[in-house]
Amino acid sequence: MPLSEFALIERFFARRARLSPAKAALGIGDDCALIAPDPGHMMAVSTDMLVEGRHFLPNADPSALGHKTLAVNLSDLAAMGAEPRSFTLALALETPREDWLEAFAEGMFALADRFACELIGGDTTRGPLNLCVTVFGDVPEHAALRRDGAQAGDDVWVSGTLGDARAGLGILRGEWPDDLFDASEAAALRHALERPEPRIALGLALRGLAHSALDVSDGMAGDLLHILERSRMRASIDVDAVPRSDALRKLPLDAQRRCALAGGDDYELLFTAPAHAREAIADAGGRANVAVTRIGTISALRHATDEPAIEWHDGGHAPLSLTLHGFDHFDAT
Amino acid sequence: MPLSEFALIERFFARRARLSPAKAALGIGDDCALIAPDPGHMMAVSTDMLVEGRHFLPNADPSALGHKTLAVNLSDLAAMGAEPRSFTLALALETPREDWLEAFAEGMFALADRFACELIGGDTTRGPLNLCVTVFGDVPEHAALRRDGAQAGDDVWVSGTLGDARAGLGILRGEWPDDLFDASEAAALRHALERPEPRIALGLALRGLAHSALDVSDGMAGDLLHILERSRMRASIDVDAVPRSDALRKLPLDAQRRCALAGGDDYELLFTAPAHAREAIADAGGRANVAVTRIGTISALRHATDEPAIEWHDGGHAPLSLTLHGFDHFDAT
Repeated sequence: MPLSEFALIERFFARRARLSPAKAALGIGDDCALIAPDPGHMMAVSTDMLVEGRHFLPNADPSALGHKTLAVNLSDLAAMGAEPRSFTLALALETPREDWLEAFAEGMFALADRFACELIGGDTTRGPLNLCVTVFGDVPEHAALRRDGAQAGDDVWVSGTLGDARAGLGILRGEWPDDLFDASEAAALRHALERPEPRIALGLALRGLAHSALDVSDGMAGDLLHILERSRMRASIDVDAVPRSDALRKLPLDAQRRCALAGGDDYELLFTAPAHAREAIADAGGRANVAVTRIGTISALRHATDEPAIEWHDGGHAPLSLTLHGFDHFDAT
Repeated sequence: MPLSEFALIERFFARRARLSPAKAALGIGDDCALIAPDPGHMMAVSTDMLVEGRHFLPNADPSALGHKTLAVNLSDLAAMGAEPRSFTLALALETPREDWLEAFAEGMFALADRFACELIGGDTTRGPLNLCVTVFGDVPEHAALRRDGAQAGDDVWVSGTLGDARAGLGILRGEWPDDLFDASEAAALRHALERPEPRIALGLALRGLAHSALDVSDGMAGDLLHILERSRMRASIDVDAVPRSDALRKLPLDAQRRCALAGGDDYELLFTAPAHAREAIADAGGRANVAVTRIGTISALRHATDEPAIEWHDGGHAPLSLTLHGFDHFDAT
């Protein structure tokens, strides 16, 4: 017999939702949850909707899906320098299956518990598989890492390595030769796709250091452009400096670049900061246990009417004309 | 050519989102929005997901759908005694059509503007039609209308009339004889289904008066049970006192009762309050321009091990044994 909505919520979500001490004044079970940021803090809010076939493949491992559903939202908090507090989950399912829900909840709560992020409400309904999370975090009022703060002379930084998730998707799709990656490399690339790590600790450590930040979800080239457009700046990027894993480096150079610059689903932080902060940023990366790499610089628009743009060059400062269009990330396929 | 996600967001949502004065410190366009409740207030949060075929019929009027998508969420704020502040919208669409989006946005913003409720963020993606709103409202810390506060001796009240939305659904489904309702009655019943009015003003007026409250979304009988379970109480309800519109009264008595008690999609407020507040509650209804009707009383469980339950009786105090099971509201069809 199919589970009723209420039995489903209670069994798989509500009983695991309450943290001790509770973060919300009132959690699951009323018309609304009641929350408030700490005094002097703002509440950072982000929402993401994941749809089968667009953000994950049909028959995706439900535990990994539970992880990723929350991770992509936590990544938005990280990009804001906000500390995770709570989240809501709305999900539509065609046929509630206990084993699927059990694994999904396990993956989601394993990540939520790591960041003491409390499930405070949600909705369940029948329908084509759809997962919508809204996440809440605290950030001191003037410490938020916004997209519109990049300044001329800033370095451009990125955390971790880029392109691994896109390469992992290529494995699932059979885009690469079968014997290109050994088993551990293939596993690492798939892990990057299926279990991205939200860079919460780095986001918190960058408060007061970074002038601007976002998380790389749609591909670095397009995402950097969001910073440039909001800040009315341009950027010069050393393509060879963009950090790539050893596994990714097994691909031809052109494929490496396309994965790293336009692959998307990376959930690394892309941020800008003044040159005098270089040492502090290296320290921040060390404390957050993630590599941080300088890949370019921000400069002013030459004329007020110029459009923000990225100039690409290689390690030898030779200009590159990159054709990234048409190599969209998973969501756009 | 299909609209890109960014063009779609900008054209139909972002440019209409910003209120003046803005409610959010940072709205659409960054990784997160930044919001905070007023000093001394909590933020009430609720999320609802609407799926085609379950919460609305395929080919539903998009303007009405825009209204209802936000209205069902605002209704949760009303039930909490919270004042609307802002909301996020995540939507999945198979094929973005400009006329559909234009009408949907018109219906949604017309309602949002009435309550000065600001769109602060969201997500759009391709996928089977799915609408997920998370709504935020302010409520003084100890004034929230919760489900767990009903006390022995409380009156049970309901706003407006119940059952109209379910009767309107019956019209769309051809469940009633064609000539039962005249044109204006049929239009009123459909209006109740398609354009429910969130009882915000009433919810605000009930702060400090009502001991418990919720909004009727799944059917009054089942929703009242939520209050009883959370408050560990039982209720005695006069079925003949449950307010019904003149249009609904054209149905046979049994169908009237089933629509009013188990129809759902009403979005009226169901609340309990002490007898000494009767005059103040009548005043509150008057100020909020909605009828409020006493339909029963709350009493203590006879034994601590008793299950919370509803005793139904008619206007002559004769006990009624109602079989409401199987007459589910729209969502469960």
